Amino acid sequence: MKAKVHVTLKPGVLDPQGKAVHHALESLGFAGIGGVRQGKYIELDVAETDPAKAKVQVEEMCKKLLANTVIENFAIDLEG
Amino acid sequence: MKAKVHVTLKPGVLDPQGKAVHHALESLGFAGIGGVRQGKYIELDVAETDPAKAKVQVEEMCKKLLANTVIENFAIDLEG
Repeated sequence: MKAKVHVTLKPGVLDPQGKAVHHALESLGFAGIGGVRQGKYIELDVAETDPAKAKVQVEEMCKKLLANTVIENFAIDLEG
Repeated sequence: MKAKVHVTLKPGVLDPQGKAVHHALESLGFAGIGGVRQGKYIELDVAETDPAKAKVQVEEMCKKLLANTVIENFAIDLEG
């Protein structure tokens, strides 16, 4: 079963990486960009075939390693 | 209009960051993980309201800055 995890900064948390990308895009001549936020995208293959159990397992992974839940949110999509 | 961009390594390109995450998850006791690939997730607010034009603009941003098209693929989702 494939798990797709998005880890994004919580609203209100400063995002210097996003700011740098925003600035770089403007330097390249792209206009009309309101804001840029950058997060992480992680694809995992898990052996667990029960979607409910797989979700619990991946949530645990997010809390323990993939996301810093003080400043980041995570979202999990399961496929197959 | 909000654009969500996923930048992922092309299949076959080595992903040391994903390998490190995989290894760390195993060290934490998570079993049955087949593979981990890590990519980037970028959210942009663009002023353009026409979806077709916004897509062209964001594609241009991906090719010029956000993705290294030699080793990375990108996917764009537009919202509202």
